[in-house]
Amino acid sequence: MGQETDRVLAEVSTDVVIFTMREDRLCVLLVRRARDPFAGCWSLPGGMVGLDEALDAAARRMLASKTGVTGVYLEQLFTFGGIARDPRGRVISVAYYALVPPDRMPSVRVAPDVAWHDVWKLPTLAFDHADIIAMARQRLAAKLEYSTIALQLMPEKFTLSDLQTVYEHILGEPLDKRNFRKRLHSLGCLEPTGEHHRAGRHRPARLFRMKSPGRVEFIK
Amino acid sequence: MGQETDRVLAEVSTDVVIFTMREDRLCVLLVRRARDPFAGCWSLPGGMVGLDEALDAAARRMLASKTGVTGVYLEQLFTFGGIARDPRGRVISVAYYALVPPDRMPSVRVAPDVAWHDVWKLPTLAFDHADIIAMARQRLAAKLEYSTIALQLMPEKFTLSDLQTVYEHILGEPLDKRNFRKRLHSLGCLEPTGEHHRAGRHRPARLFRMKSPGRVEFIK
Repeated sequence: MGQETDRVLAEVSTDVVIFTMREDRLCVLLVRRARDPFAGCWSLPGGMVGLDEALDAAARRMLASKTGVTGVYLEQLFTFGGIARDPRGRVISVAYYALVPPDRMPSVRVAPDVAWHDVWKLPTLAFDHADIIAMARQRLAAKLEYSTIALQLMPEKFTLSDLQTVYEHILGEPLDKRNFRKRLHSLGCLEPTGEHHRAGRHRPARLFRMKSPGRVEFIK
Repeated sequence: MGQETDRVLAEVSTDVVIFTMREDRLCVLLVRRARDPFAGCWSLPGGMVGLDEALDAAARRMLASKTGVTGVYLEQLFTFGGIARDPRGRVISVAYYALVPPDRMPSVRVAPDVAWHDVWKLPTLAFDHADIIAMARQRLAAKLEYSTIALQLMPEKFTLSDLQTVYEHILGEPLDKRNFRKRLHSLGCLEPTGEHHRAGRHRPARLFRMKSPGRVEFIK
């Protein structure tokens, strides 16, 4: 660190917006802060990037340490570097977002100070984490238009109504059922399982699965 | 810096992929490195982020210092944080890309060690800058599909053929003229200037301009 005077060093952290679907709602995993700054507020899981740790590896580590989940969709979102975002000093946050399918949820350990929150009904958040979550939801919503990313939030088998609910909650608006099904059909990413789901007095609904599980396809 | 032992400090730089169109080609501004590491190789304009400087401000500063250009499209691309990307130590680069319309080019100062290069015919690049440029071109190509971003690379008045050439060079493939014009029409972002451009023995072509200059619109 001999040249420190003319070199700027910053703390580099990563914060991860971990999304899942719970009770038909897009939810984000938050941690309640015990200490100042922002004691009592909720915040994204995150922490400092290790000196010998790539950024992606750091984000995967945050995800695994809070949820025990590995091998799910994880994407770099944006780097937040406002000069006043942390009252303790200059901290640059490389934000990521992760999508956890609800059937991976049994393996998610949630501690007392950790909870899932509806993305449309968030509590008071620390730092600029409200901006980070808003951007992550917007990125996800934008990708619904031209990719199969929503399937990363689905269990192995699901009905088309289930999938429409996921789209609607991410977008924050209802969709026309017929147009939605036409669009899905044109994506060609689903196949029927041959099974049906029976709920209440409704007609049994066909169950579908992804043709290429784990792959996000982009549409021209 | 009392807690330095358990806090990781990294150098944070920003590198800017500055695109323009020159002679119907998408070009990127590169700087030849005088010193090691990678002496003699070409690199992106960039430098360290100031301690009291927001990331966007640092990127705008790099752009202005190399080109004299301000007020053009600038977007954060991705943060590159591989542990071995700089042999001198851990440097995290927040990469941006900028689009400079060719009629802003007269104001672009290019020094002897600075030159525009065709994005499809790049020289040997320093660090991971080849990856950064490739990602910037891909981001731009992806946005052609669902936004009016290409118009940020156009002069004030242009023909539809000019615009098609820009699309084709960014995508690296020819486009069908009729489909291209249909798509443009559906965007509704252009208006005729009432003037025509006459080139050689061809029929004079209508000149168009953006309806909302400076705005990038996204299409659903």
